[in-house]
Amino acid sequence: MNTPHKGLDITTAKSSRLDQVDFDNLVFGKYYADHMMICDYKDGAWQTPQIMPYGPMEMEPSSKVFHYGQAVFEGMKAFKDADDKVWLFRPEDNFNRINISSKRMAIPEFPKEYFFDALNTLLKLDSEWIKKGDGNSLYIRPFAIGTEYGVSASPSNEYKFIIICCPAKAYYSTPVKVLISDHYSRSADGGVGYAKAAGNYGASFYPTNLAKEKGYQQVIWTDANTHEYLEEAGTMNVFFRIGDKLITAPTSDRILDGVTRKSIIDLAKHEGIDVEVRRIKVGEIVEAAKNGTLKEIFGTGTAATIAQISGFEQDGTFYDLPEVENPYNVKLKKMLQDIQYNRAEDPFDWRYAVETK
Amino acid sequence: MNTPHKGLDITTAKSSRLDQVDFDNLVFGKYYADHMMICDYKDGAWQTPQIMPYGPMEMEPSSKVFHYGQAVFEGMKAFKDADDKVWLFRPEDNFNRINISSKRMAIPEFPKEYFFDALNTLLKLDSEWIKKGDGNSLYIRPFAIGTEYGVSASPSNEYKFIIICCPAKAYYSTPVKVLISDHYSRSADGGVGYAKAAGNYGASFYPTNLAKEKGYQQVIWTDANTHEYLEEAGTMNVFFRIGDKLITAPTSDRILDGVTRKSIIDLAKHEGIDVEVRRIKVGEIVEAAKNGTLKEIFGTGTAATIAQISGFEQDGTFYDLPEVENPYNVKLKKMLQDIQYNRAEDPFDWRYAVETK
Ligand SMILES: Cc1ncc(COP(=O)(O)O)c(C=O)c1O
Ligand SMILES: Cc1ncc(COP(=O)(O)O)c(C=O)c1O
Repeated sequence: MNTPHKGLDITTAKSSRLDQVDFDNLVFGKYYADHMMICDYKDGAWQTPQIMPYGPMEMEPSSKVFHYGQAVFEGMKAFKDADDKVWLFRPEDNFNRINISSKRMAIPEFPKEYFFDALNTLLKLDSEWIKKGDGNSLYIRPFAIGTEYGVSASPSNEYKFIIICCPAKAYYSTPVKVLISDHYSRSADGGVGYAKAAGNYGASFYPTNLAKEKGYQQVIWTDANTHEYLEEAGTMNVFFRIGDKLITAPTSDRILDGVTRKSIIDLAKHEGIDVEVRRIKVGEIVEAAKNGTLKEIFGTGTAATIAQISGFEQDGTFYDLPEVENPYNVKLKKMLQDIQYNRAEDPFDWRYAVETK
Repeated sequence: MNTPHKGLDITTAKSSRLDQVDFDNLVFGKYYADHMMICDYKDGAWQTPQIMPYGPMEMEPSSKVFHYGQAVFEGMKAFKDADDKVWLFRPEDNFNRINISSKRMAIPEFPKEYFFDALNTLLKLDSEWIKKGDGNSLYIRPFAIGTEYGVSASPSNEYKFIIICCPAKAYYSTPVKVLISDHYSRSADGGVGYAKAAGNYGASFYPTNLAKEKGYQQVIWTDANTHEYLEEAGTMNVFFRIGDKLITAPTSDRILDGVTRKSIIDLAKHEGIDVEVRRIKVGEIVEAAKNGTLKEIFGTGTAATIAQISGFEQDGTFYDLPEVENPYNVKLKKMLQDIQYNRAEDPFDWRYAVETK
């Protein structure tokens, strides 16, 4: 973090690939904005960040990231308002979190000025990639990988911090069904579950595939010790509404401290909703589903914003949630998006204006 | 596994880099043998394996391995005997294990013929890279990574299975001191600890760095739930000798099923040593250290073969192990290496002859 600020080197793309994108039938992650940022770490310091055309890079087959998984990432979004102004949502939290993740994965922390300079520069260069309209955004993926070559199991001495961007529209638009895990686990006490470490996600794919074979889109993870406590979903924190109360698990070293999660907690409280942050037993949810007090379940995350969960399987039984009037998830999602798209006041000071002119 | 065998495509290196290697001052992982194997998986099948000169490859910044850590690997060694014959040690176990790891990380399994054809071809082409003499070997690193581009958190549809090789000599030649973990953990029940998944190693670097700052080379992991049971070290399984008994933890979904571990168990039994495979309490080892019955601790792994552990720290106290006469670790290491280097009978049929002429 003490690296002195040296500015950015910028090489712009000769031509834009924007006209190749079918925005009406957008496949998330298929198209990348014209520019990316790559910053190398070597000789103990982050070098001058390079803005350059998006494209492949050369990697040694012995690069540490392939063997030892030193890799962390973030996910954030840029929104365009009715006046073509571009906004980020709580980007400082993503910046802080990637450094928390990096520390746990023995990756050197990235300087703040570099991060924000790169974001501002990329979004200015590629502002045309950000489309207006509800659900539309430019998804921003900062990530860091160990690039030193060498197959000995020790931290890399060289890294790349990269930012790539791709256009996104709303997804998970239909409610999802989830499986509550009673065998597989996502993370351990003293482990890396609180970090956005690449390996956490790869590790979840096989159990998620098994859930998909049973007709579920996602797994809700439980604690690895007892499988009695509800934790989070693949890329979302999870909220349960019992009666008029909104409950979500506390963060821990097993659970990601989601930016959307904490925003939803604040918005719900602001709306006068009774929010409880505490451990939640699987049994409590099953009981509430049986006696009809379980009104809603939803996931929160940057990619999905809020994804309604319409039912869950636990221990072989499927519990279908009833339709409720004026659901919290719809109201809270609207409140959140109104702030993100600059359609409402921002009482919490969450918006970050990007200079694109 | 049903992919029909289509043979290999071979492009040989124009010239060898062998003369650049300083074998007297070998740095492990610095030099790679002239050839590598890359096999692509796409359209639902492994394509024809390519043997080609070792060198960098092009990767999309959005390749899944960088973001979601779908990456598994193996570590094996080729040995050269006094007659210049080349041998692998139980390669079938490594082949089986990488597919076990792959399955857990939602990576398609690799065909057996491809694996062995590639190994035989590489070792024939690069047989000069294998040096004779105790401790010398060619370290072989097969690995598989998700290469499809796209930042959505789902399994890759494209992979590369790669084999690279690098010359190795004995390491950990001086006894190591270890720290017994009482906070950080390596893996969870229902997790991926039994897989050689890249992320497991990156996750261990930070706690290992903390141990190094205290003067320890390695961490011995304990179970994440209670930290009461001894599991394994960073890249080694661990054996404890109490009195004349040799004890090691059973494998589980948290512990790697080490090839060296099971070989040492068999060799020890063959020598008439009393071997117990059972859970071991930290308290039992501390007690044995105190009353003088703890005679030896050693780690077993392909890279280190057998690494003697001369002491450990637990809960702030350092326990130094006494020097013992005719230690098991020395005798068992010799027995193992005599088989590996074809200097002794091979009663267990562990050696695999490589045709290099
Ligand atoms: C494991 C996990 N939990 C929760 C979240 C939600 O976090 P955020 O709201 O910051 O996107 C994510 C995705 O970012 C995640 O990967
Ligand atoms: C976590 C872990 N445990 C144990 C081992 C030892 O296994 P093997 O003897 O098969 O090399 C390794 C290394 O391969 C490892 O990575």
